[in-house]
Amino acid sequence: MAENKNISRELLPEPTLRRLPWYLAYVSMLHSQNVEYVSSTQISKELNVDSSQIAKDLSFLNIKGKTRIGYEVAKLERELRDFLGFKRHHNAVMMGVGSLGAALIQDSGLSRYGLNIVAGFDVNPLIVGTSICGVPIYNVDELNTRRKEYNAEIGIVAVPVDKAQEVAEKMIAAGIKAIWNFTPVRIRATEDVVIQDTSIYSHLAVMYNRLDAQNTKVK
Amino acid sequence: MAENKNISRELLPEPTLRRLPWYLAYVSMLHSQNVEYVSSTQISKELNVDSSQIAKDLSFLNIKGKTRIGYEVAKLERELRDFLGFKRHHNAVMMGVGSLGAALIQDSGLSRYGLNIVAGFDVNPLIVGTSICGVPIYNVDELNTRRKEYNAEIGIVAVPVDKAQEVAEKMIAAGIKAIWNFTPVRIRATEDVVIQDTSIYSHLAVMYNRLDAQNTKVK
Repeated sequence: MAENKNISRELLPEPTLRRLPWYLAYVSMLHSQNVEYVSSTQISKELNVDSSQIAKDLSFLNIKGKTRIGYEVAKLERELRDFLGFKRHHNAVMMGVGSLGAALIQDSGLSRYGLNIVAGFDVNPLIVGTSICGVPIYNVDELNTRRKEYNAEIGIVAVPVDKAQEVAEKMIAAGIKAIWNFTPVRIRATEDVVIQDTSIYSHLAVMYNRLDAQNTKVK
Repeated sequence: MAENKNISRELLPEPTLRRLPWYLAYVSMLHSQNVEYVSSTQISKELNVDSSQIAKDLSFLNIKGKTRIGYEVAKLERELRDFLGFKRHHNAVMMGVGSLGAALIQDSGLSRYGLNIVAGFDVNPLIVGTSICGVPIYNVDELNTRRKEYNAEIGIVAVPVDKAQEVAEKMIAAGIKAIWNFTPVRIRATEDVVIQDTSIYSHLAVMYNRLDAQNTKVK
């Protein structure tokens, strides 16, 4: 697989990294509609992002737009997917196989974006020893050996709030390099550990507040 | 249920709204450990947020800390949960019952945070007419009548990328006031519609990039 090693190893600004998947979603759609070229002006109109910003974001990629016709859709899609790491396989372990953890294991969308959940860990004897969609669930005690066996660099945290920090420390000790944290807990770790927070419940709070404010305005 | 109607109707700064669930997670943990009081200095140390910022964030709530002993843990937990809207019930419909949509319906954690998914909608004849964890799945054609029947204000979008905008427009026409968007698509809508993006795949891109940069640094 051809990888833009030099490019993708750069630490990109987070806003750029958040916009690139928007572009990917849009050009994937164009691709499925057999559109051949797209200009940054078109992307700009569709996504409501300044077109100079789009040109700047895309300048990180290994692609050049042509004057007047723009970017080749198929190539742009391929480059974006590659650049964002969605084409490489990243092995991950799931810590906590309760409701959310089990749901994430079942979401086949994650593997399409390069994330392979290879094993789950829990303390519940009713779950340990079973498997979900082919993913085996082990006791947390086995984290060290299994982590190495599966060569997993990413650990997903979906444990109860009062266990999040402890579990994070166990993962780091076992060799996990990046933590995808689905709890609302702020995990403390040394700088060499990547922490990505995706607190979906916090997003709910923002949405409820906006909805309340909107409902008050209307009435 | 006692609600701080006057307070929660204010449009809060998003950073505050994102930090409040951190405080809630922390005081819930303290509460479960029977801790009675907590100071903003303690919260500050634990969560790595400036203590004056914490005092400012908590000033939106109906609670006062006592000099030297701080906030009453049980009361602070209750006020935060109430203030964030997690104690009220918000009816929501799930648009798209594929892998992610079905997973979210199965996540009982959402109802603990006030979100009741009351119905799912899809176009797949193999899914329509079934139910997941007691949640009935209807054909999209029934959205208008079912939305009213269930009095749902929130619509969750977990459809394929090329259907997201179309589905959003259908929801708005059916009376949905807030859209929780799990696709990487930028949904366009008038200002009176609340849009909350939770693109978990975009978070993956950020994490991969950070992990690559970290791995390069180490080598």
